[in-house]
Amino acid sequence: MTPPKGIAVLGSTGSIGVQTLDVVASFPERFRVIALACNRSAKEIAAQAVRHRPRVIALADREAAQTAQQCLQNLPVEVTAGPEAVVACAVRPDVDLVVGAESGVTGLPPVWEAVRAAKTVALANKEPLVVAGHLITAEAKRSGAQLVPVDSEHSAIFQLLLGQDRRSVRRIMLTASGGAFRDLPADRLDQVTPEQALAHPTWKMGPKVTVDSATLMNKGLEVIEAHWLFGFAPEQIEVVLHPESIVHSIVEFADGTMLAQLARPDMRLPIQFALSCPERLPRPEPALDVAKLGALHFDEVPISRYPCLRLAREALAAGGTAPAALNAADEVAVEWFLQGRIGFTRIPEIIESALAAHEVQAGDSIASLLAVDGEVRERLEKDQRKWI
Amino acid sequence: MTPPKGIAVLGSTGSIGVQTLDVVASFPERFRVIALACNRSAKEIAAQAVRHRPRVIALADREAAQTAQQCLQNLPVEVTAGPEAVVACAVRPDVDLVVGAESGVTGLPPVWEAVRAAKTVALANKEPLVVAGHLITAEAKRSGAQLVPVDSEHSAIFQLLLGQDRRSVRRIMLTASGGAFRDLPADRLDQVTPEQALAHPTWKMGPKVTVDSATLMNKGLEVIEAHWLFGFAPEQIEVVLHPESIVHSIVEFADGTMLAQLARPDMRLPIQFALSCPERLPRPEPALDVAKLGALHFDEVPISRYPCLRLAREALAAGGTAPAALNAADEVAVEWFLQGRIGFTRIPEIIESALAAHEVQAGDSIASLLAVDGEVRERLEKDQRKWI
Repeated sequence: MTPPKGIAVLGSTGSIGVQTLDVVASFPERFRVIALACNRSAKEIAAQAVRHRPRVIALADREAAQTAQQCLQNLPVEVTAGPEAVVACAVRPDVDLVVGAESGVTGLPPVWEAVRAAKTVALANKEPLVVAGHLITAEAKRSGAQLVPVDSEHSAIFQLLLGQDRRSVRRIMLTASGGAFRDLPADRLDQVTPEQALAHPTWKMGPKVTVDSATLMNKGLEVIEAHWLFGFAPEQIEVVLHPESIVHSIVEFADGTMLAQLARPDMRLPIQFALSCPERLPRPEPALDVAKLGALHFDEVPISRYPCLRLAREALAAGGTAPAALNAADEVAVEWFLQGRIGFTRIPEIIESALAAHEVQAGDSIASLLAVDGEVRERLEKDQRKWI
Repeated sequence: MTPPKGIAVLGSTGSIGVQTLDVVASFPERFRVIALACNRSAKEIAAQAVRHRPRVIALADREAAQTAQQCLQNLPVEVTAGPEAVVACAVRPDVDLVVGAESGVTGLPPVWEAVRAAKTVALANKEPLVVAGHLITAEAKRSGAQLVPVDSEHSAIFQLLLGQDRRSVRRIMLTASGGAFRDLPADRLDQVTPEQALAHPTWKMGPKVTVDSATLMNKGLEVIEAHWLFGFAPEQIEVVLHPESIVHSIVEFADGTMLAQLARPDMRLPIQFALSCPERLPRPEPALDVAKLGALHFDEVPISRYPCLRLAREALAAGGTAPAALNAADEVAVEWFLQGRIGFTRIPEIIESALAAHEVQAGDSIASLLAVDGEVRERLEKDQRKWI
C-alpha cells in the first residue's frame, strides 16, 4: 500500500480550497494535508487546521497570522506569516502535490516555486499560466514537475487526452455556458448590476470568475491556459456555447472523431481527479442520468457580444507580457464593476484601452511579469477618472 | 519506417468489406491487402482483386470461385475455394490484421482460427462474439490475439477506455437510434413492410442489421458483444436512445464522470481506427460542427416496445448455448420478415419461442455452438407453419 500523498492547499479558504479539503477528507488513506495557506482568513484557516491537522499553516497577512496563532494555541500546528511563508508551504519536502487555488496573480510566485521544486501542481488558479505560461511550462519541462488542471474545461481535455494519439488532435473545444447574460439583449448589457452578474446559471463560483463568465473573459483566459497546458496552437482552441454546462470540453481528432467529457457541474470532480489521477476514486453523488437530461445544446459564440474573448485571443497572439497586462486590466475592471463604480460594458473597454497603452515586452522573468501587472494596475488607478 | 500492415478482409464484398478497402486504399504506405474473401460474389471480388492486388482471394462457394478465376486469368492472384480457403486467408503468416466482416455465423470459424493464430482481429461481424464470446475471449487471452471492435458503439467504448482507469468504470451506455419505427405507435408495428424497416433514419447498413436495428435486437447483440469485449457485467451495460446517432457510446466512471465519443455516422471512421489504432490517421471529410448540431437528444428505451432487447439480455444471463440459439432464431425470423412471410411483431415471438424450446448447454466448443445454431434453424424451418 502506497503512503498517502502529502498535500499543500494554497488558497485553502477560497471556494476551490474548501472543496479540495472536502475531497481530501473523504480519502484519509490516500491524502494527507501537510500545509494550508491563505491570504488573511484567520478564523477560517484555523478551523480548517483543527479539522485537517496540517503540519503548518501560512497566512500572507502577518496580522491575520497572529489571530490564527491565537485560535490554535493548543494544537501542534506551526503558524507562519508572510507571502514567503506561503511559498515555503509549496516547496516542503513532505509535500507531493500542491493545489494552487489562490485567486489572482498572488498565486504566481508559490506556483512558480512549486514547479521549480518538481512538485505535482494541481492548478485551479488561472493567472499563473495566463501571465507566465511560457516560463512555467518551460520550467516544468526542465524540473519534471507535472501540471494537472483543476478547471473543469481543462480537466476534461486532460482526461480526454490520456491514452490518445495527441499528435492527431485537430482542435479542442472549450464549452461556455454563456454566463449570466447570455439571453439578455446586447443593448441592455450596460444596465446590469453586479448582483445580476453574480447569478451564474450553472456554476457556483467566486465573484471575480463569475463576472468573467458573464463577459466570457473567463473563457478567454482558459484559451490562453489551454494553449500552455496542452501545447495546441491558438487557432486549434475553440469556444462553443453549451448552456447546460454538462459537456465540459471536446477534443477533435484528425479522423473527425470527437471525444467529450460530461459531468455534473461540481468542482469536486475535477479537483478529485487532479488529486488521484490517473486513478479515479468513487464519489457518492448519483451520476448524471443521460436519458433524463433530454437534450444537450450547442451553439456558436456570438463573438461581437463578447469582446473580452477577442481581447484575450489578441493578447495571446501578442505574447510576452501582453496576457499579464490583459489579466491585470481585467482584475481592476471587474473590481470596479463589483464596487458599482462602472457599468458592465465598460469592462472590455477598459481592458482594450490598457492593452493598447501597453508596450509588449518579452516577459522573460517572473519579476518582469509581476512588474507589468503592477504597472497596468497603477496606470488604471491613476487614470480612473476616464472611466468612473 | 514500419512496413505496411498485411490485411485480410473476410467478407470483402459486403458493406463493411467495401468500406474497409476504401480506407485501406487511402493509406498505401500503411496497409497492404494480402487476402480477400467472400461467400459467392465472384464479379465483385474479382474487381476488388484487380484494384487492390491481394496475393490470394477465397470464395466459400466453389462454383463462384471458378467464375472469379475466369475473370482474373491475367492477374497474379491465387483464387481459392471453399470455407476452408476462407479460414486459410485468416491465418496466413503474411497477414497481421484480419477484418472479420462476414455476416452471420459463417464468420465464426475464420475468426476463431485468426484468434488461435494470434492475429489482430478487427471485428465487424457480431456473431462470433455473440455465439462464442466465452471461447473467443479465453482463446485470445491464451494466444495473445487482440480483438479490436469495428461496430461504431464498441469502437467508441474501445477508444474511450484507452488510457483510462478501467477498474473504476461504473457502467457503459450503448446508444441506439431506435431504428426505423421509433416514432410509430406500437399498435401499428404489425403492419410495417420490409421496405419500411430498411429505411434506417441515420445509418446505411446491410438488410439484416437494419431490421435488427428496428427491433433493437441489434442493440441486444451489442450488449452481449460488449460483455465479452470489455468484460463488464451485463448490468453495467445499458442502452440509451439517441436519435441523432452522433454520440456512439458513453463510459461512466466511479466518480460520476462520463466520457462520450461523437462522430458522423460513417462506418469508415471505426474501420479506420481499428486498422490504425492506437494511432489515428486523418480523414478528408469535414468534421462535425458541434455548434451547428444544435442539440443532441437522449431518452430511455421503452423496453416494452422492444422485446428483442429483453430476449438478448435473457440469453446473455442464461449463458452457454443460449446466445447461439437467440442469434439463429433471429436470423431465421428476420429472413422470413424480409421475404414478406411474417409480420414484424412476429420476430420477437419466434425468438422467444425458440429460446423457450432450447435446452441450454455449456457450449464449450465451436462445433457444439455451430450445432446449436443448426438445430435451432432446423426446428424453426420444420415448425414454420406455426408462424407463417
